[in-house]
Amino acid sequence: MEPNSLLNEHSLEFRVRYQETDQMGVVYHGNYFTYFEMGRTELLRSAIGISYRDLEASETFMVIAKAECSYRKSAKYDDILTLKTRVIRMTRFKIEHEYRLFRDQELLAVGHTILVTVDRSGKLTAGPSWMQKYNSTN
Amino acid sequence: MEPNSLLNEHSLEFRVRYQETDQMGVVYHGNYFTYFEMGRTELLRSAIGISYRDLEASETFMVIAKAECSYRKSAKYDDILTLKTRVIRMTRFKIEHEYRLFRDQELLAVGHTILVTVDRSGKLTAGPSWMQKYNSTN
Amino acid sequence: MEPNSLLNEHSLEFRVRYQETDQMGVVYHGNYFTYFEMGRTELLRSAIGISYRDLEASETFMVIAKAECSYRKSAKYDDILTLKTRVIRMTRFKIEHEYRLFRDQELLAVGHTILVTVDRSGKLTAGPSWMQKYNSTN
Amino acid sequence: MEPNSLLNEHSLEFRVRYQETDQMGVVYHGNYFTYFEMGRTELLRSAIGISYRDLEASETFMVIAKAECSYRKSAKYDDILTLKTRVIRMTRFKIEHEYRLFRDQELLAVGHTILVTVDRSGKLTAGPSWMQKYNSTN
Repeated sequence: MEPNSLLNEHSLEFRVRYQETDQMGVVYHGNYFTYFEMGRTELLRSAIGISYRDLEASETFMVIAKAECSYRKSAKYDDILTLKTRVIRMTRFKIEHEYRLFRDQELLAVGHTILVTVDRSGKLTAGPSWMQKYNSTN
Repeated sequence: MEPNSLLNEHSLEFRVRYQETDQMGVVYHGNYFTYFEMGRTELLRSAIGISYRDLEASETFMVIAKAECSYRKSAKYDDILTLKTRVIRMTRFKIEHEYRLFRDQELLAVGHTILVTVDRSGKLTAGPSWMQKYNSTN
Repeated sequence: MEPNSLLNEHSLEFRVRYQETDQMGVVYHGNYFTYFEMGRTELLRSAIGISYRDLEASETFMVIAKAECSYRKSAKYDDILTLKTRVIRMTRFKIEHEYRLFRDQELLAVGHTILVTVDRSGKLTAGPSWMQKYNSTN
Repeated sequence: MEPNSLLNEHSLEFRVRYQETDQMGVVYHGNYFTYFEMGRTELLRSAIGISYRDLEASETFMVIAKAECSYRKSAKYDDILTLKTRVIRMTRFKIEHEYRLFRDQELLAVGHTILVTVDRSGKLTAGPSWMQKYNSTN
């Protein structure tokens, strides 16, 4: 597979769990970051054909350097949501994702994360070959 | 109490729970937003003398419009952390907080949130008097 | 639909999220109860054709009176799990579910919950007609 | 310290977080198991003088074999709760805890857990000396 396929948008559908709500009757805002994690995991699997689990098994870890989310409408219990995830920037050490969360056509939230690749000790380290290749050709 | 006391920094100490860790052996990044929520709740209680629970009971809700966090060092299980919270901007409808999370003198993360005040139906509404007063004099 | 269809086992497949792990490298034990909640929600939807969301909208709430889980093997990040849920006892006020969580053929955990039906104030109240009907014929 | 001090009841006070609530307006039932984890961690620290973090660092892990909770009254947002934790049974391989959760004098929930000691590979292994000593004299 080509690393450029990472730039394609990936779409993930899932249902909101009761546990994810808070007493305001909506999804607790911190849980959107769990959704984003699901989105980038599935994007990686579908675009590059590897699982993040295997990446960790090969001693490459992607840690969050920055995470943000803008909330427009609330997600609710039992909603079926669609999360659209894509990579908007990538170097040998860093991947930036953008996330857009929808309920049907309605945009609920937009998120961004920056991940950096580290080894088990937490030291910055070049990512896997598909990240390095991408960098060298852009 | 004076609304300006909201501008004072509030300090909260707490211990990391096992449940908050993930398999990387550190606190899961989404959980920092739960810490920030604890910080602004205690700032409100100590600066204005009211609980957010009472605020909701009076039909004023503060919902998250934006949340972000920059991660520098990982918090770990059983760490005693210190969260410093302050208000950096406030209008009749909106409060912006800044959060700095420390382990001893070491800065682990910096966060920001923007909250807007809404009624039960989710409609934007002016916040309680201490928010309105603040706005009128600034 | 017939209430007796609740006695059929329902099968739900889902993937373990990174957020659900802890630093032991396995799913945190408390999260199994979130899985069980997903199982009984989907059993209700498939057997009775209603969502728990609609049940709450009609002012019937099912609250947990007892929950337990026996853990045999650990679920891990990115595992695809199968949760088998069935009702093992039901009266007008109470439903008892049994849950068995599998990774392929391997049984990871067995759970039980007892739910009671209450109104918004928390007062014990007879459940919806399919619960009452069940009771009257058993 | 004496292992028998584990049999003394330990009392932990903490405040309910907004994140811990669900849309029923109460603490989500699965979160009680996080509270219980906090209780047994602090009991261990106060009775034996070691942290569970250090125990893991010495390659002894305590994994949950069974967990249960009976729910009587709901804990709510911002409540100050008191958790009373004690060991009710202990062998070289196993510890059983009992938990009682209070809001003031009101008993909200009663829990039990069984933990077994394993090594990093998950193999059953005798616990630390204070567990072995306890066993040999009882």
